[in-house]
Formats: sequence, structure tokens, C-alpha cells
Amino acid sequence: MMIDLNADLAEGHGAWRMGDDAAMLALVSSANIACGFHAGDPAIMDRMVRLALAGGVEIGAHVGFPDLQGFGRRVMHIAPTELDAMIIYQLGALHGIARAAGHRMTHMSLHGALGNMAAADALMADHLMRAVASFDRDLIVVSSTSRAIEAAAARHGLRLVTTFLADRAYDDDGLLVPRSTPGSVIHAPEAVLERVRLMLTDGIVIAQSGKALATRPGSILLHGDTAGAASLAALIRREIEAIGCSIVPVSRQAG
Amino acid sequence: MMIDLNADLAEGHGAWRMGDDAAMLALVSSANIACGFHAGDPAIMDRMVRLALAGGVEIGAHVGFPDLQGFGRRVMHIAPTELDAMIIYQLGALHGIARAAGHRMTHMSLHGALGNMAAADALMADHLMRAVASFDRDLIVVSSTSRAIEAAAARHGLRLVTTFLADRAYDDDGLLVPRSTPGSVIHAPEAVLERVRLMLTDGIVIAQSGKALATRPGSILLHGDTAGAASLAALIRREIEAIGCSIVPVSRQAG
Amino acid sequence: MMIDLNADLAEGHGAWRMGDDAAMLALVSSANIACGFHAGDPAIMDRMVRLALAGGVEIGAHVGFPDLQGFGRRVMHIAPTELDAMIIYQLGALHGIARAAGHRMTHMSLHGALGNMAAADALMADHLMRAVASFDRDLIVVSSTSRAIEAAAARHGLRLVTTFLADRAYDDDGLLVPRSTPGSVIHAPEAVLERVRLMLTDGIVIAQSGKALATRPGSILLHGDTAGAASLAALIRREIEAIGCSIVPVSRQAG
Amino acid sequence: MMIDLNADLAEGHGAWRMGDDAAMLALVSSANIACGFHAGDPAIMDRMVRLALAGGVEIGAHVGFPDLQGFGRRVMHIAPTELDAMIIYQLGALHGIARAAGHRMTHMSLHGALGNMAAADALMADHLMRAVASFDRDLIVVSSTSRAIEAAAARHGLRLVTTFLADRAYDDDGLLVPRSTPGSVIHAPEAVLERVRLMLTDGIVIAQSGKALATRPGSILLHGDTAGAASLAALIRREIEAIGCSIVPVSRQAG
Repeated sequence: MMIDLNADLAEGHGAWRMGDDAAMLALVSSANIACGFHAGDPAIMDRMVRLALAGGVEIGAHVGFPDLQGFGRRVMHIAPTELDAMIIYQLGALHGIARAAGHRMTHMSLHGALGNMAAADALMADHLMRAVASFDRDLIVVSSTSRAIEAAAARHGLRLVTTFLADRAYDDDGLLVPRSTPGSVIHAPEAVLERVRLMLTDGIVIAQSGKALATRPGSILLHGDTAGAASLAALIRREIEAIGCSIVPVSRQAG
Repeated sequence: MMIDLNADLAEGHGAWRMGDDAAMLALVSSANIACGFHAGDPAIMDRMVRLALAGGVEIGAHVGFPDLQGFGRRVMHIAPTELDAMIIYQLGALHGIARAAGHRMTHMSLHGALGNMAAADALMADHLMRAVASFDRDLIVVSSTSRAIEAAAARHGLRLVTTFLADRAYDDDGLLVPRSTPGSVIHAPEAVLERVRLMLTDGIVIAQSGKALATRPGSILLHGDTAGAASLAALIRREIEAIGCSIVPVSRQAG
Repeated sequence: MMIDLNADLAEGHGAWRMGDDAAMLALVSSANIACGFHAGDPAIMDRMVRLALAGGVEIGAHVGFPDLQGFGRRVMHIAPTELDAMIIYQLGALHGIARAAGHRMTHMSLHGALGNMAAADALMADHLMRAVASFDRDLIVVSSTSRAIEAAAARHGLRLVTTFLADRAYDDDGLLVPRSTPGSVIHAPEAVLERVRLMLTDGIVIAQSGKALATRPGSILLHGDTAGAASLAALIRREIEAIGCSIVPVSRQAG
Repeated sequence: MMIDLNADLAEGHGAWRMGDDAAMLALVSSANIACGFHAGDPAIMDRMVRLALAGGVEIGAHVGFPDLQGFGRRVMHIAPTELDAMIIYQLGALHGIARAAGHRMTHMSLHGALGNMAAADALMADHLMRAVASFDRDLIVVSSTSRAIEAAAARHGLRLVTTFLADRAYDDDGLLVPRSTPGSVIHAPEAVLERVRLMLTDGIVIAQSGKALATRPGSILLHGDTAGAASLAALIRREIEAIGCSIVPVSRQAG
């Protein structure tokens, strides 16, 4: 039994920091690195890539909308060819920094509004996945549950790994309940750990309705942007180890 | 006898354009493509890369300071490790866009204040060339005459091709006379063409002092940012062809 | 009979230019000046304000989304309080530059996607007009036909002047036909001039359906972003003068 | 005996925060608010202005270079007319936000590299102070000791208040010892408090050499960008109150 632990890191910009990157890096097997559009900058990316390399952590590009002020969380309508070029630009930028540092980019994920929009829009998911594949068909797409993204990744020959959000409620279709819905975020640590256990041992997540859904994600997304979140992340990791599950980055899991 | 013709292209941003990219692309064998820091953006880069591929033109990264408003022409003091990461980020971004489009990045050059500062600062030239080599030791560095950059490129195992500015005065050391000096820009088309002829046929450039200097650049930089400049560029190309010199991109010239 | 002629000016950024500001400034009585968010920058704003002052042209703030790369034409979803602060920031910035130059800002208008969204969204129009009024209740709002903006301006005690787009088709409700609709832009100069004549002399615009609509705009918007547009703008001005109509900026028309 | 306490606040951007603004706001009589160029954004400025108004704290514009990534700490060479327009733009922007919120901007100060460069460059100080005066001759300039800025402010009719940095070493000319010099920052709280006492009661600061210098600053700059700094700021305030000195914003001190 193996699972990847990933987190969104390097989300500062210039002199600003977001979350405790050092603490989170010690917990994860994969780091999703912001590429300078919604967060991050070349120096922050470079430092994170080198820390990840030193810590044996795999790296992926966390690509987003060009909106530092909005942290990539604002809906933006960008023409497909422009948006595709932006995604490839970000993939290339992190690839370059990884290459110069002697590391290797193994995966990618979509951040914020870009991810939410693509998850709900088959046409958008399709051109984004085609863009990713045009850059590197060996990149693994890490995504929360989305039929649109899963279908698009498959269509363009990309391997997709589903990531599980242990502290978020799911609906009966296995999709994340939007943050705006009451009860969408699960705060009690014990409840979160129980969900991790159930998912790992029985392959089950209990939807908000109480329905048990079968699930086999390859990864768990840990949040580190608040102090409490980072402690919870450490608890989750200990729980996984206690269960006897191996923490293995996505690229070293069987495809 | 062979020479490369290169120009700085894709220097628009969003809805803004700079110079006549289409006209210039038809004249050159190599395009130096702005990478979004001082000019350019992902969509403009993508279009230029595809046009260059279709036109049989080689592409290189024209890297600059992160200063769109100043067009990369303002002196900025940036810590070496940050600046190196910025350069690698830009190289990676264009590499990514080229890869997705099926083209290949063969060279790089330094833009504006970044180039001027590096040309006059051996330490800065050294860390920049080390950064370029860390990304790809096969990239060719295209530069106007600078002992600092030449020495640094050699030290880090990078091939350097000198580019000749036919419309700019040179001093007795073979360095460009700064733009602020009277007479530094040669406006008369016939004088510019004569300099091209002399350089190609006799390997000589006449310095501002009248002194004849030996020179063997591998490339000529054409300007296209004004209407007059684009017509002059066309004249230069015709002159080179009339001489019987082959126009060959730097990567296909013997190293 | 009096009418204002206005145009969107100062839409360059850094070294980039958009349209022929000098030609247009000589034709208009009011300049809508981009405030650095979708276009413009402090130096461009300052030059335009001083040229307008010298030319006896009134100035207004042309406020937009924070999106230079998209020229403010991309839909962005920004929280009302944030967006309001952005609008006030832009108004204040131009006010400051005008004050330092000895000029006075008399009006404001909404650019691109911001304007289109507000024109169709009564809630958004309301908070934007409230924001404008909180900064300066004496600013005149210049807008193409929009019931949402008109009602919101009235509610917040702001004077609104409707601007007429002579080269754009109108629907039966007096609203602009979207650019994406065939026939929405009227290219033939004679047809445009005829519309100007009809509007000025009879207070009528012929909708796309052929229906005659009563209209009494206080201003005509001239486009200057293409060479053809600038010549057409000159023709329109001559036509207005030939009719005997006075060209008077909005602040000097009776409210 | 009266003294102003000021701090640099609102130095976040978008989702990023810098320092504990709420804690510092409770300690100061004046807030220097970043204006979106080196830090800050319209929404952050708006929130800070409203909090300052509610807390009875005066506000000033903390203007800087256009360099979010470098936090305004990087040297940039910007042409005087462009830089002046940038300063006025920032002053106007904060003025606008204050006006809309019902508050009033009373002062301004120069941030980071902009301040350091102006403090050492009489020509630059002169055109910057001329720019400030052109916007509003009633703005008070708050500055650490600099003959260049003091002379320029006087020349352009601006009142200047010197701010004292209790945790920084001074040289024999009363200028700040650069941060790069060993011993330039005084870390021991008791030493800092002793300097505050000596300055307030005897009008003396002990230079790094041991020499006693006469000094009568109108303000003390409190740092709040680290947890330790915020606690020290609270200690300084308590010390001042214990001495019996009144904490009064610069605009309410006799000029």
C-alpha cells in the first residue's frame, strides 16, 4: 500500500511568505511549486527546488492565472491559445530551474480559479491537457476529482493521479463540496484522520450525505498555509505511517 | 563565407506591439525572442516561435530585467542568485514554448541594461554565464563585443558568437561607443552598408577614431523598431547576398 | 447645440504606444486617460495631462481592471470592496497627477470588460458609482447607454453624460450591439457621418432593425487606435462643425 | 514634550501580509501606508486607512520604487520626470482612498532604495521634493536624517519632520550607519530604550564612535515586521509614556 503526500509550496513572492514551507517540505513526498504567475518568483522557485532535491522530494509545477494580487483565486476569462501559452510558459520556467539545479519536474497541477474552472469545463480541461501534453507527455497530472480533467488527460495520453483532500467534504458524485457550502471544510483533526484511515484501509470516503463512496487516490493533499494546518499535516503523516502505508511520490507509484 | 542575421523580436506585450516583427522575420536567420520580463508575453512568444519555425528561422532567448514599464533599459541592482534564477526562468520559459511548438532554442542574448551591465562587469558576466551553462551548456551566447562576457562564456564552456552592429560606432578597443556619445549611431544607409561590406569582405571595422580593427563576428544585429530601420535591414540583407555571403544561423556555423 | 468629443488616450505603457494620441488630442474636447491598470503609466499620464492642459482639453479617468497584459478586456471577478478600492485608487492617481500639473479632472469612464460588466449588472454598477461618488460627487460619469449605470449614477448623486458611438450599431433598446454580432461595427465613413448628422440635428439614431430611436447624448466617442479611425475622427469633427454644432466639454454643458 | 510614533504599515500585497499591522496600529500616532508600488494594494490601503481613522491614527504615503518583487529595496535608475510622476501617482492614490474613506493624508515618506538614494543625492532629493510640493505643499515630509532631503524640502516650502530610529546606530554626522556595517542595528531592548530616553529627555543620541550628538526629532520610527520588533515597539511606547512625553502625530505638533 502506497500513497503520495503533496502540498502547495513556494507560495510567497519577493519578501512575502505564505505558510511554513520548511515544515511542510519535511512531511511531503511531492511539492507543487508556484511558478510566478499567482505566487512564487524565480528565486523562491530556485530555493524550493534545491531544498526539495536535498530532501528527496519530487517537484511539480503548480500553474495558475497571471494574478499575483488575486493569488490566482479570481475568475479570469482568457482566450484558450493565450491561456495554453501561459501554462506552457510556467511549465517551462520550472523545468528550467529544476534542470539548472539538477532536479527533475515530474508532475503538474492547476491552482485556484484555473483549477476550479477547468474541473467544471470540459472544453477548457481539454485544451489545457493538450497544452501540458504538447510540452511533455510524461508529466503526471495531479488533480482533485474532476471528470472533465480526467477525460481530457486520458484523451491526450497523460497519466493522472487523483489527490484526496482529507479535510474537505465530498458530494455523492465524489466531487468536492464547494468552500462556500456550510460543512465543506472539516476542521476536527480526529475526523480528518478517520477519513484518511478509511480511505487508505478500505478505499472509502464518506460523502456529506453519509453515502460511502469507493475511492483510490494516489495522493493526499496537505495544507500548510496556517499554523493549525501544518500540525494537522504532521498528524496525517504519522497516521499514514502507523497504518503501515508507504509514502511514495507519484512518479514512483505504478502508473 | 557565412554570416547570421539576427534581430530582437516579439517585443510587444499584450495588445502592444514594437516594430514590424513580420517584416524582420523575413530578413533574419535568427530571432532573439523577449521572454516576458522586459517585453513579450507567453502568447506573443508562442506566435513568434511558430512563425520562426514556419520560416526556418532559429530562435534564442532575449533575457532581461523584470521591468516591463522600463523595457529592461533601467539599471537595477539585483542580488546574483536572484538574477541568475530570473535568467534561468526566462530560458526555461522559452525552451518550454519552443518544445511545445516543435521548435528548438539554440541561443540566448542579454537585453538592455542587463546586457550593458554584464558587458562592463566581469563578476556579473561570470555568474550570468554560469547560470546559462547550468541550464544548457549547448546554448550559444550571442553578444556584442565584451571581454567580460567572452571570458565568462569561455570559462563556463559556452560557445559565444559576436554580433556586429553595423549602424553603431566602435572605439579603438572594438567596443561599442555608448549611445550617449555624439556620433555613436550611424544613420546614413550607404555608410552602414559600406561597414557591412568591409566587415564581411576584409574582416575590418573602422573605429570612430579612424583606426582599422580586425573583426570576425558570426552575426549581424538588424534593428526593426522603426520604419526606417526595417528598410535599412532589408538593404543590409540584399548587400550581404550581393557580396555572395551565405546567411546561416549561428548554430549551423562551425563552432 | 453643443456636443463633447471624447477619446480614450494615453493607452500606451512604458515604451509602448497605442494609437496616435497627438492627432486625437487635437480633435477632442475631453480626453479619457488610462490610469495604469489596464494601460497607461504615471509618466504617460503626466505627459497627457500637460498636453491636454496646453490644448484646452478636459481630462477624465478611464479606469479599468488590473490587467495590462489583457488590456483590461478580460472578464475578471473581483470582490466589490476590492474593486471599489481599485477604482478610487485610479481616480486618486489621476487626480494627483492633474493637481500637480495644474489641471483638473472633470469626469470618469469605465474601460473594457469593467465597463461591459457594469453596464449589464445593476449591483456592480451600483457599488462602482457609490465608490466614484465617495471620492468626488462632482465627477461626471461618461458612459455609453446602460440603464444599470444610469440608475446607479442617479442614485448616488452623480451627473451622467451619455456618449454616442457613431460607428457602432444599436439595438431597439438603444444599447450597443455586441462586437461579436455581425454588422455591429459600421465601417463606411459616409454611413458614420450620416449617423452623426442625424443624431445631432434630429436627435435620432437608426437601430440595426431600422427603427428610429430618440437620443440626446452629450458626447461622441472618437476612436483613434487605428490609422483609419483617426482620419474618420477628423471627418466627424469637420462634419459637426459644418452642422454648426459647438464642441464643448461635458463639464461646460448645462447639467 | 511631544513626539510622534510612526510605523510602516499596510506592507502586504494581495493575500500576503508583512508584520502585525493591527498590533502596530495600536501603538502609533502616524501610519506610513505603502501605496501599491513596492508593497500594498488598493484594498489593503483602504482597510488600513479605515482602521487608522477609527483608531485616531494619522496617515501618510510611504512611496517607493515600482518593484513588488524587490519590495522597493533594489536600486533602480529611473529618469527624474518618470520618477516624479510615480511619486505623485502614489500620493494621489492614497489621497483618493483617504478622501473616499473620510480620512486625510497628512504626511509622506520615502521607502527603501528610493529613500536611501534620495538621502545621498541632492539632485534627486530636489526633484522629489519639488514633485511632492507640486502635489500638496501642506504635506509633511517625514525622513530620517539627510541633509539632501532637508535642504530640498526647505527649498520647496515643505515642512520636514526628522524621524529617529532608536534601534539603529548613527555616525558622527548624525546619519544612519548603513545596515551592512557591523553594529548598525541595536538589538538589545534595554539599549534601545536607553537611546529613546536620552533622546527625549536630553536631546542627545550617542553616535557609534561614542560621541554625543544633539538631536530633536519629531518622530520615532517603530518597526513591526518581526514578532520581536512588535514587542520592542510596545516597550518603547510604554517608556515614552513613563517619561511623561505626549504621543502626538506630526501634523499636530507645532511646525
